[in-house]
Amino acid sequence: MEAHKQLTIGLFGFGVVGEGLYKVLQQTPSLKAGIKKVCIKNPEKKRNAPASLFTTNKNDLLNDPEINVIVEVIDDSVAAFDIVQTALKNGKSVVSASKKMIAENLQAILTLQQETGQSFLCESAACASIPVIRNLEEYYDNDLLHSIKAIVNGSTNFILTKMFEEKLSFSEALLLAQQLGFAESNPKLDVEGYDAVNKWTILLNHAYGIVTHPDRILFSGIQNIQGSDAAVAREKSYDIKLIAQAKKLKNGKVAAFVLPQFVELSDPLSFVKNEYNGVVIESGFADKQFFYGKGAGSFPTASAVLSDIAALRYNYKYEYKKLYHHKPHLLTNDYYLKVYLSFDDWKYIPREEFEWIEEWHAQAERKYLIGVLHCEKLVSAKWWKSNNTSLILTPDPVIDNLDIIHLKKRSLELAGVV
Amino acid sequence: MEAHKQLTIGLFGFGVVGEGLYKVLQQTPSLKAGIKKVCIKNPEKKRNAPASLFTTNKNDLLNDPEINVIVEVIDDSVAAFDIVQTALKNGKSVVSASKKMIAENLQAILTLQQETGQSFLCESAACASIPVIRNLEEYYDNDLLHSIKAIVNGSTNFILTKMFEEKLSFSEALLLAQQLGFAESNPKLDVEGYDAVNKWTILLNHAYGIVTHPDRILFSGIQNIQGSDAAVAREKSYDIKLIAQAKKLKNGKVAAFVLPQFVELSDPLSFVKNEYNGVVIESGFADKQFFYGKGAGSFPTASAVLSDIAALRYNYKYEYKKLYHHKPHLLTNDYYLKVYLSFDDWKYIPREEFEWIEEWHAQAERKYLIGVLHCEKLVSAKWWKSNNTSLILTPDPVIDNLDIIHLKKRSLELAGVV
Repeated sequence: MEAHKQLTIGLFGFGVVGEGLYKVLQQTPSLKAGIKKVCIKNPEKKRNAPASLFTTNKNDLLNDPEINVIVEVIDDSVAAFDIVQTALKNGKSVVSASKKMIAENLQAILTLQQETGQSFLCESAACASIPVIRNLEEYYDNDLLHSIKAIVNGSTNFILTKMFEEKLSFSEALLLAQQLGFAESNPKLDVEGYDAVNKWTILLNHAYGIVTHPDRILFSGIQNIQGSDAAVAREKSYDIKLIAQAKKLKNGKVAAFVLPQFVELSDPLSFVKNEYNGVVIESGFADKQFFYGKGAGSFPTASAVLSDIAALRYNYKYEYKKLYHHKPHLLTNDYYLKVYLSFDDWKYIPREEFEWIEEWHAQAERKYLIGVLHCEKLVSAKWWKSNNTSLILTPDPVIDNLDIIHLKKRSLELAGVV
Repeated sequence: MEAHKQLTIGLFGFGVVGEGLYKVLQQTPSLKAGIKKVCIKNPEKKRNAPASLFTTNKNDLLNDPEINVIVEVIDDSVAAFDIVQTALKNGKSVVSASKKMIAENLQAILTLQQETGQSFLCESAACASIPVIRNLEEYYDNDLLHSIKAIVNGSTNFILTKMFEEKLSFSEALLLAQQLGFAESNPKLDVEGYDAVNKWTILLNHAYGIVTHPDRILFSGIQNIQGSDAAVAREKSYDIKLIAQAKKLKNGKVAAFVLPQFVELSDPLSFVKNEYNGVVIESGFADKQFFYGKGAGSFPTASAVLSDIAALRYNYKYEYKKLYHHKPHLLTNDYYLKVYLSFDDWKYIPREEFEWIEEWHAQAERKYLIGVLHCEKLVSAKWWKSNNTSLILTPDPVIDNLDIIHLKKRSLELAGVV
């Protein structure tokens, strides 16, 4: 057996994750990986570690030839990208937990890995403790990944769970999440879907070889979901979850988005409650697989960072097989979605945009409809995010272009229109 | 990026899994892996593949220098071990699905891998489509794997699901499983736990570096579970599942067994219904993780074989880190178990073997008790498998030696004995 590479770590950031990692490494002596130096922003803050460990000068880490691994768990995505660039160019491996930084600089980080030959690992950036990136890289290595859908944001899932199980309003549930530390004091990043779409950008890359930017993915958060939506869902025996989804269409292109969705109670994602994350992968022959675990928090995140560090001992690198060895899949908005919309007034709803509407409730104060429309109609306009309108996808919402005429005909027949 | 190794496969066995693999490979051209020859036992049987593909002479595969991968999916474990030995010695990589063969020859297969330097992969041998072996090898690479518990046999899980959800008797449920193809016509291997303990032997090796034989693991099946046990479980808001479990004790040794168990409805394993499998891993920092998927069937099994074949393109080998790089953990029977027992007559129950009994129902025709006894009391005797006695573990059944005195005292206090 080969000898392990000796790892000497330079750590950026000593917040909950950084300190968590420090504690974890102390309790994992067999890993033989030591933190030599920690770079922090605020030297005044009291730290639970010897003062000699800390510096505020990033070059003390980046230019130290003894340090061969940079671990970066800071909040500032501009500074993080700068650190990653310099570290890779200086011949160091990098472990990063900065999902926003990675998602927004994906192509540059891929190019840097190719140019430097260094390893860049980021298991903790998506679903934290669930080893989803490594599994997509190593295990689903074939053309048969039909779809992947996931709950990738624990804060929104916590809020939705409380709205459902304890019938709290959105704002009550958000307050509770904040009190328990599951949501930031500025919750916009979580609640409006920004965090989820960053993670989804990263996972689309490892799942399908897609290189895109979060701005180019259709997404929304849960900010407009109402108690009445939860009541409709319960009536139909559905949960509501914020689901990141990607599905291969018949033409080989991939439909991908992050949107609230009705979830059947038999769907494994309906089992995912509170701050947990979950991933369902459907592949040609393995059928349906489900991965479940904690998606955030200091120890789950530190644990994923730790597993990346452990893999570096064996010089592990992502091979990005779907990108470099296969023909990578292309993202498309050319497909249809079946949606539920609830709204205050019909005047906010451009009914002419729909292929067909197959169910509506217009009497109550809060009205709703279920209908089918082309994805581009949602991408190009924002009416469905405005005027207190709430959009929730139906279960299995993607309709292939090749099926739309047939389905429309059947739906109109069922409605007695033709 | 490195070029892939060209794989030329010799396949042993063309039953449901072998034929499934043949079809899967035809639909995965990007893998660039072709089957050159298939060795079968019965040349008279009609096959859905060209006749020129088949031979009945194993040496046509084992001695062909062009064939660099032997895939072995046959039923006969003696013949399978012979094939594996020769293939590895002849410088070929091996992918095997024969759990019984692997479990019973574990040490020999480990030694062969070290001697020949060849790769031996067996993801399909445990939980089929769930990538549990690869994850245990690659991801939980630290000292912090607290416990692993799993449903590894789909047939028994199907039977238990039907006993619970449709209140079928054991024999009715078994018949249904056989009709649907989820249980063999001779169901003893599944129903009495032999299949599960074979898989558990393999997983204990990858989880903890333990090298043992299935004969040395405490196990039972579900053959003695009665409708009245299901009723008691329902009353206590439990499921009953056949659970394979391993837990690290405070002294660093590992308690491991395969036994029926009460499962709380909040436990992820309670989500595992019908023929599905599931694995829950608890580690120091990742908290609880859950993997779920199909554990048997031609395509799920073929899919796991396929992922091993794909890994061979990159010369992947199990490193058995916990065995060779860490101090491997030792198996022990020196701990206590909290059990539920139902029985027809007190005379079959050696009450003096129990540390304490904390609940009993003696009036009804079918009696039961809940009590604590040392694991050795179950290993050394078979009274709990005889006379129509049914043993089911309670949730979280393992009691550490270091806790027993304290717990006994508290339990007796609660009972008002002291």
